[in-house]
Amino acid sequence: MWSLHCSVCTYSQPDGTKLASLCPDCSQPLLVRYAAPVPKSAITGDASLWRYGAALPLLAGERAVTLGEGMTPLIELPHLAAEIGVRRLWVKDEGINPTASFKARGLMMAVTRAKALGLSGVCVPTAGNAGIALAAYAAAAGLPCRIYAPETTPPPILGSIRAFGADLQLLPGHIGDAGKATLTFARESGFFNVATVREPYRVEGMKTMGYEVAEQLGWRLPDAIVYPTGGGEGTIGIWKAIGEMLDWGWLPRETPRPRMIIAQAAGCSPLVRAFRAGEEKATPWEDPTTHASGLRVPGPLGDRLTLRTLRESGGEAEAVSEDAIRSGTFLLASKSGIDAAPEGGAALEAARQLVAAGRLSRDAEVVVFNTGSGASYRW
Amino acid sequence: MWSLHCSVCTYSQPDGTKLASLCPDCSQPLLVRYAAPVPKSAITGDASLWRYGAALPLLAGERAVTLGEGMTPLIELPHLAAEIGVRRLWVKDEGINPTASFKARGLMMAVTRAKALGLSGVCVPTAGNAGIALAAYAAAAGLPCRIYAPETTPPPILGSIRAFGADLQLLPGHIGDAGKATLTFARESGFFNVATVREPYRVEGMKTMGYEVAEQLGWRLPDAIVYPTGGGEGTIGIWKAIGEMLDWGWLPRETPRPRMIIAQAAGCSPLVRAFRAGEEKATPWEDPTTHASGLRVPGPLGDRLTLRTLRESGGEAEAVSEDAIRSGTFLLASKSGIDAAPEGGAALEAARQLVAAGRLSRDAEVVVFNTGSGASYRW
Ligand SMILES: [Zn+2]
Ligand SMILES: [Zn+2]
Repeated sequence: MWSLHCSVCTYSQPDGTKLASLCPDCSQPLLVRYAAPVPKSAITGDASLWRYGAALPLLAGERAVTLGEGMTPLIELPHLAAEIGVRRLWVKDEGINPTASFKARGLMMAVTRAKALGLSGVCVPTAGNAGIALAAYAAAAGLPCRIYAPETTPPPILGSIRAFGADLQLLPGHIGDAGKATLTFARESGFFNVATVREPYRVEGMKTMGYEVAEQLGWRLPDAIVYPTGGGEGTIGIWKAIGEMLDWGWLPRETPRPRMIIAQAAGCSPLVRAFRAGEEKATPWEDPTTHASGLRVPGPLGDRLTLRTLRESGGEAEAVSEDAIRSGTFLLASKSGIDAAPEGGAALEAARQLVAAGRLSRDAEVVVFNTGSGASYRW
Repeated sequence: MWSLHCSVCTYSQPDGTKLASLCPDCSQPLLVRYAAPVPKSAITGDASLWRYGAALPLLAGERAVTLGEGMTPLIELPHLAAEIGVRRLWVKDEGINPTASFKARGLMMAVTRAKALGLSGVCVPTAGNAGIALAAYAAAAGLPCRIYAPETTPPPILGSIRAFGADLQLLPGHIGDAGKATLTFARESGFFNVATVREPYRVEGMKTMGYEVAEQLGWRLPDAIVYPTGGGEGTIGIWKAIGEMLDWGWLPRETPRPRMIIAQAAGCSPLVRAFRAGEEKATPWEDPTTHASGLRVPGPLGDRLTLRTLRESGGEAEAVSEDAIRSGTFLLASKSGIDAAPEGGAALEAARQLVAAGRLSRDAEVVVFNTGSGASYRW
């Protein structure tokens, strides 16, 4: 069993199975805590993230709303390691997920809990991939869903959302504007808003990326993990997983934690700006512009948790120009065969820039995340 | 170790590691045969098709050119089973593969062998997905590649081929025309032509779909497998796997083999026409037209092997109209959350039509293949 705890204040909700959103006391995200350590022996042979089902918020006998998400490939790329200047490099290819992005992990978990709670419907604002994922898992659960997206979202992404029969609402502006519309709609309709970190279970799905990296490396950790970051839930989830694995004895207690590094687009990098300024939270970015639509999140609600992760891990934050995102994406795809999305290209170039600037060691073993498939950006 | 044997005449090539294409005696496809049974105990814990690596043509110590392909989700859909009228229904979602289709399995194997043979380059004609897969695996192997595709191929598919840095050549007509251009180029350049069944290892990659279905069902077989069929290699591969699993003791010898059922588009159904007429080979379709580009293969070279598979298995062949493909695709996506491609929609509707016509039992347990991601069709 699990309970929910505020990530900032001391609020807790002992029965985690009840409906929950942000902390009622301080409006910050809630995180799941398990009553007892989950033993490593509970990991099963599943070829999906359900191999870690014992460490996920699922009630006894409950059936998850699953499309076979997770257990994505981790691919070592010696040539690219040499090219960007680190000792070893792996890319975790999250495009090989249902709905073609890492968002499948989180929305699977949110929809599973929403279904178990008997909610009448779910809604979400999206910069793209979260919308596809919610549409797919809501279809799988038979739950009505409404999705708010900027009208500038790449057409194939909008087409995917519609393909699952979701109620798609387009509007001017960016994901922040979509977020406001979602809040209003949720209040009026009773649909539950599963926006990033506003919903406490998405991060539980996301954390499985951390488990997988450790297991796929033979139960050890890299020196650094580079994550292309919009809303922050990927970084937050992986960091949570690392803590759990150390607490629960999945890894030796003395295992050094990796440096968590975020990559953002130069045209929308509120977290990089805040990190460099030593701030605890981010100021919204004024005019967010980037073709990497997953990174076009000017005011992420997960800002405090992400910045805390960077500080705790001795991490880094790096912004990448549009041209460098494009060249990094082509470099990654053409030298590895991985169908890199712009977000993945941004992460690779962030690593290269940090090495060149002496802020990431040439001796480092680095895992870079490609958070989705490049296919969503072709039309 | 393995050898190559003609699928029609008695020709064999004892050293399977040498370069090989069609049978030099009768120009029909060669198939791989293993010297010794592969024990079930050789299956490993890998979360990819490499769990069956002992049953694949790989030399000792050789490193496969892999992107983590295979071990795709098999999802049971009780609501859709009721809707189309069968007892149980599962969809095998091949969109959850590198390059977003089942073609990854075959091209991985072809490129792995091409790399081991030290070939100077590879080329292929494509109706779409095979081109993406070859481009990706050639990039992973560092092998030059050239791809011939009809200019009517969906733009996102062409964009994906280019994203991997492949040399893409567009031409008027259909895949048959692309095939002729590929033959000419291969002769002039020395690049090896890895077209469907012309290359003997693609089917070895494809057969892993059969292993996975059996293992994911708990080491048993369904009553019928419905495969949307263009060139035929998926159907041929699965049938080969079923024979191997029975021969090698992975399944009890008395296990009934499933009926193999192919789905084609009404606008291009040479195999359905030949099967219904009791022919051993297909006559090329005159004016191939369908939006399911993977099914737009008017003169498949795998015709004899596919038709033999249908006869041996007591199978069926069904053609589906463009409207029914569209409605089947939306039905599958919106009721399951699987990102159905038109080919998957065609397979689902073929099953429905066969049940309605009394040619597929309402008591059947059926596995339907969704051979790729719907995302490739959105622009
Ligand atoms: Zn609080
Ligand atoms: Zn022959």
